Amino acid sequence: MSDLLGFAPVEVAARVDDRAWLQAMLDVEAALARAKARLGLAPADVAEAIASRCDVARFDVDSIAERTLASATPVIPLVEDLRALVPGSAAEFVHAGATSQDIIDTAVCLIAKRAIDTIVHDLVSCSDRLAALADAYKRSPQIGRTLLQHAEPTTFGFVCAGWLVAIDQATTALNRVRDERLAVQLGGPVGTLASFGDQGAELVSSVATALGLATPVMSWHTDRSRIGELAGALGITSGALATVALGVGLLASSDIGEVAEGRPGGSSAMPHKRNPVRSVLVTACTHRVPGLVASILAAAPGELQRAAGGWQSEWPTVTDLLRLTGSAAVHARVMLAELRVDTERMAANLEQVGETVLAGLTADQHVAAAEAWIDRVLHARL
Amino acid sequence: MSDLLGFAPVEVAARVDDRAWLQAMLDVEAALARAKARLGLAPADVAEAIASRCDVARFDVDSIAERTLASATPVIPLVEDLRALVPGSAAEFVHAGATSQDIIDTAVCLIAKRAIDTIVHDLVSCSDRLAALADAYKRSPQIGRTLLQHAEPTTFGFVCAGWLVAIDQATTALNRVRDERLAVQLGGPVGTLASFGDQGAELVSSVATALGLATPVMSWHTDRSRIGELAGALGITSGALATVALGVGLLASSDIGEVAEGRPGGSSAMPHKRNPVRSVLVTACTHRVPGLVASILAAAPGELQRAAGGWQSEWPTVTDLLRLTGSAAVHARVMLAELRVDTERMAANLEQVGETVLAGLTADQHVAAAEAWIDRVLHARL
Amino acid sequence: MSDLLGFAPVEVAARVDDRAWLQAMLDVEAALARAKARLGLAPADVAEAIASRCDVARFDVDSIAERTLASATPVIPLVEDLRALVPGSAAEFVHAGATSQDIIDTAVCLIAKRAIDTIVHDLVSCSDRLAALADAYKRSPQIGRTLLQHAEPTTFGFVCAGWLVAIDQATTALNRVRDERLAVQLGGPVGTLASFGDQGAELVSSVATALGLATPVMSWHTDRSRIGELAGALGITSGALATVALGVGLLASSDIGEVAEGRPGGSSAMPHKRNPVRSVLVTACTHRVPGLVASILAAAPGELQRAAGGWQSEWPTVTDLLRLTGSAAVHARVMLAELRVDTERMAANLEQVGETVLAGLTADQHVAAAEAWIDRVLHARL
Amino acid sequence: MSDLLGFAPVEVAARVDDRAWLQAMLDVEAALARAKARLGLAPADVAEAIASRCDVARFDVDSIAERTLASATPVIPLVEDLRALVPGSAAEFVHAGATSQDIIDTAVCLIAKRAIDTIVHDLVSCSDRLAALADAYKRSPQIGRTLLQHAEPTTFGFVCAGWLVAIDQATTALNRVRDERLAVQLGGPVGTLASFGDQGAELVSSVATALGLATPVMSWHTDRSRIGELAGALGITSGALATVALGVGLLASSDIGEVAEGRPGGSSAMPHKRNPVRSVLVTACTHRVPGLVASILAAAPGELQRAAGGWQSEWPTVTDLLRLTGSAAVHARVMLAELRVDTERMAANLEQVGETVLAGLTADQHVAAAEAWIDRVLHARL
Repeated sequence: MSDLLGFAPVEVAARVDDRAWLQAMLDVEAALARAKARLGLAPADVAEAIASRCDVARFDVDSIAERTLASATPVIPLVEDLRALVPGSAAEFVHAGATSQDIIDTAVCLIAKRAIDTIVHDLVSCSDRLAALADAYKRSPQIGRTLLQHAEPTTFGFVCAGWLVAIDQATTALNRVRDERLAVQLGGPVGTLASFGDQGAELVSSVATALGLATPVMSWHTDRSRIGELAGALGITSGALATVALGVGLLASSDIGEVAEGRPGGSSAMPHKRNPVRSVLVTACTHRVPGLVASILAAAPGELQRAAGGWQSEWPTVTDLLRLTGSAAVHARVMLAELRVDTERMAANLEQVGETVLAGLTADQHVAAAEAWIDRVLHARL
Repeated sequence: MSDLLGFAPVEVAARVDDRAWLQAMLDVEAALARAKARLGLAPADVAEAIASRCDVARFDVDSIAERTLASATPVIPLVEDLRALVPGSAAEFVHAGATSQDIIDTAVCLIAKRAIDTIVHDLVSCSDRLAALADAYKRSPQIGRTLLQHAEPTTFGFVCAGWLVAIDQATTALNRVRDERLAVQLGGPVGTLASFGDQGAELVSSVATALGLATPVMSWHTDRSRIGELAGALGITSGALATVALGVGLLASSDIGEVAEGRPGGSSAMPHKRNPVRSVLVTACTHRVPGLVASILAAAPGELQRAAGGWQSEWPTVTDLLRLTGSAAVHARVMLAELRVDTERMAANLEQVGETVLAGLTADQHVAAAEAWIDRVLHARL
Repeated sequence: MSDLLGFAPVEVAARVDDRAWLQAMLDVEAALARAKARLGLAPADVAEAIASRCDVARFDVDSIAERTLASATPVIPLVEDLRALVPGSAAEFVHAGATSQDIIDTAVCLIAKRAIDTIVHDLVSCSDRLAALADAYKRSPQIGRTLLQHAEPTTFGFVCAGWLVAIDQATTALNRVRDERLAVQLGGPVGTLASFGDQGAELVSSVATALGLATPVMSWHTDRSRIGELAGALGITSGALATVALGVGLLASSDIGEVAEGRPGGSSAMPHKRNPVRSVLVTACTHRVPGLVASILAAAPGELQRAAGGWQSEWPTVTDLLRLTGSAAVHARVMLAELRVDTERMAANLEQVGETVLAGLTADQHVAAAEAWIDRVLHARL
Repeated sequence: MSDLLGFAPVEVAARVDDRAWLQAMLDVEAALARAKARLGLAPADVAEAIASRCDVARFDVDSIAERTLASATPVIPLVEDLRALVPGSAAEFVHAGATSQDIIDTAVCLIAKRAIDTIVHDLVSCSDRLAALADAYKRSPQIGRTLLQHAEPTTFGFVCAGWLVAIDQATTALNRVRDERLAVQLGGPVGTLASFGDQGAELVSSVATALGLATPVMSWHTDRSRIGELAGALGITSGALATVALGVGLLASSDIGEVAEGRPGGSSAMPHKRNPVRSVLVTACTHRVPGLVASILAAAPGELQRAAGGWQSEWPTVTDLLRLTGSAAVHARVMLAELRVDTERMAANLEQVGETVLAGLTADQHVAAAEAWIDRVLHARL
């Protein structure tokens, strides 16, 4: 599926596209069937018959998407089609006892978990590269700019250390959400899982273990704090990446010229242009994130036992958040990996500024102060 | 292209998908080539050679999407491919003098114009249906509810008249943006259109006429008020549709039961459920709109002659706004067309409330007051 | 009332503070009383007795604010206090037939009308100053910067013309909302104004004329498009001002230095700093606007005859929007009035760039193209 | 200071008003002076002379607010006034080595820490009350409503348990931000704290200990993740409170009537109204939160060593977030403390629904399932 305007690399888009979503829902149905079998709530061969059909390649995505409009949930056509695929005797066990929100919320968590794994991988690459830059340029002086005015000297390594800390904080936030907050949702129609009698809690726990998700203390149909925290962590990540991209874009501007992207972009009109393309891509992706986080938070208050519209709006919004943050992480990784640093221009710019900015200290004292913090950051990271 | 989670009808999604976008960009390149020919800036046969190739069916959408990442603009690979399609002598005339923002901004306006035409069509259907309902139920009493508490009597026709006015206001706002604010963008690299000498203004006007867009007084690369007003009008429209959907959802709730959707949805778990599906679809679509409008407004301040990320974030965001508002309009149209009104339940609910709510007037006086306003609204509409 | 963190000039804050709001509500009650007298619905002396007490100086703002929490509307304590102020025989006529939403919505429109008048005044000052700058520097060459990279030459006058057009568009949008969309709200409990029998429409029109607001075709308790359009126009205005501020901030940066603020700010730490303070103030104010517009749009769908929370959230949000946009307009006006333009630095920067950027034209051709557009803009403005 | 439109209780508004902010900044200056003395960077008596003047009662808030506009930071006039208050020899030590962002960011964290302490207190009250309700009504059957349609039975205790879990999650999120993320900011002009030589890190740690804030690994002038996480946790909290308020508002609606507020509000027009005032207050406050969170996240990318507008926009936005969430917590606490539960109406409503909703189970089985989850939740809470 092409993504002409959103700047998502193909592999990032694929992680959260319609096929990925349907597969995640099928993974939940399969895990549910098997958990029932483990608890004696369904025959083992029935569970396997169901689980073995839970492969998106067997389903018609376009048809399911179209039929979704009749019920406002993709789970109804998906379950219909899954029931049609299994042997007659197994059909009644498909999805039984669950409600569509159970499948979708658990699928969101699965999708998010898989996406976060990759995003964190990209963030760690960014961070490792920034650590190397911080170390390499720890004593490379550069004029600091506050409100875009020349301020006092810093070093480029210090700037990279600041970016590094922000990205590591984002990584921590994402990992925490993944490990503690992405959970199985399983409550049945009104959250009580009544049709499973006294085996409800055990069933939830069994599905959670199988899918590698957390076990909630009870169903969370109208407690959207898990999704809100996911959105928040993606918002933090996006902000950290955007800060790096803005910094690179400004430092790479023609009038500053202290860094450059390794593969700048061309222009359709001006052959001499060396556009900071990856910086632009990161900025374009991350700019869209805050409004989407607000949309998620605004959807939190749901009507009694199931929201009539707000919850449904979460699905594509979380999808966008994962795709955009994931894309920004990829572009930032490439931007940093290929970044060129021009210490001569840094020195020349600093020299032009004059001595006023030294604030009574020597240039070496400024550098030494920067270096001490960099060492502290790099040490804390080990 | 499926839209599993966003509830867009296929035809609405198609209006703003990647193919539609590329076709709109090609329409701009074709119009530009022909306008040059009209002004003697390019040979007529060259212009036709270019224009005749401006058909998206000749292009590889996925390839263009992928190559977009190298320059942060789809115009560069698109122009490359278009140049490769035309005779050698025509290639140098393709896109010459324009900048990629010219093509994309004009394409946004074309896309929006085409989408608004259809949205307005759906809004007028909603409005016509509401006028019929307002008239039919002008004397059908219903208890009014403020803060969800029983207040004083109104009539169902009066409620419909209120929805009608809101939708007509939205239609007016959309039509105004379409006619006055959707404009050609043509400025070349820094907005001065220098390479066309003193023929710049005439060229802009010629392209505008050909595409049915407004002629701006100068290029608007970093004046995003046109896009902001487009977003605002879509936001207003979305709010009007959301109000109707919420009203239907509440009135159709089991505890009120005064209206029902014609084709309510089923549940994956509860066979007896009669879910107000269209109401949910409208709510889910429109819930996402305010955050997107904020994203557009936040992108307004661009860096000097071309923004480095904010502008680029507008493209998918405007796309989402058009698709969501368009989808909501379709779902609202169907919801209203099929709406069932239960005047007996209205009467029964009202009777149960008792006389306190009459506030010293007779029931007839309440009805007469409602009717007078309905007549006023219907009269003003003619 | 101090506004330590929001950067509102005292006079801007005063336009929308609690006293201004209560006065606006009192103005509505006074206009309503007098309109009743004109229509024979209340004795003339009673109306005057009421109207003459409608002065905020007679009321205890803190007490009303505190008592507001008991009913979620300031109108109840306000009406209580007003009734206590008038002669006993007049008390029953105070507010009679209206509902608190009538008073608050009409007051919002009054507050907005008064604020827009001042904002437009500041915008016109900005625009006049930009016209003078556009004219004065129409032939002062400057390197254009796209994605912050040197592109092709423009002139500083052309840049000012672009800002001018954006601000004039915002002015047009605000004027349109003020003249067409700010309206009287008067519907009584459920919008039908039943207690006034067949004199309802005449009463609305009479109040509207007295207050200088538009007459709606019917009450608009749950049609929030008027407020949405107000928010949208403020959002557009904010975006136009933010664009100018960002432009000034970048051009005034130490590394570009082509303009400077007339009274730059100091630093608490660096005596040599010349901070672009007004640019920062405008940016800080306008940054907050998009999220507030989203909040207004999200509040549009109200529950049946009166919203239970969303509508109430509009009041402080519109207040913030008016104060922030008004503050940004003041700061932009001062920033532009005092702006210093350094054409020598512009020339030096341009010279350093070299001839590549001329794109085969002469420098004069670039200047001439810019000048022609400036003339066009200035001519269209007359 | 009155808060006519924002529904903030006086004591909540006072926690974050201009005086509270200035006092927090003064607390930071005092802590900095004393930390210097501890490290031998200032004489002990000088530090005490400074610290003893750091009382907002000695300062003219309005004057500082007004002078703030000249530099876009309140720290400059505040430091001026503080220097004027201390003995001549101490003046040079006031603020020396810090930059205004150090003072403001640390003050934000202090303000937030103090506010969170109170918010958490209110949340725990809500949670305790919900635990009591969950226990008291664990076997009180109620029809569950999904998409506002009758679904299957639950119990009112189960509903309360769901709200309880959401509020406890919010409490956890707030406590985590308070303990781990609210930190001292101290970096001097460009973040390196160069003027303190090799004592910088020790100074930061000393100030942090004194103020009860976390010690950052380095300065975080342009790493806004701490503020973003604060905003996110407030957003989660707001969503949890909004969910309860919406639930109460719906269940208290005239057409359902299963709960009622203890002190419902009156109407300015309808004496019989029993408005769910606290529910409206919570909804009005929390509705404004998502847009503000977006505003904070969008401000994250700052320009190099200090942002030129985005950062400055954080101050009033965080203030609003703390005030709104704090107000919502108070209103929710009161709403729950006074909540009246009508189990007869619940039973009557359920009876009217009929047996279809039992889905083949007995009513007792539904109740037993609900009860088991409630026990689980209450047990987990101990």
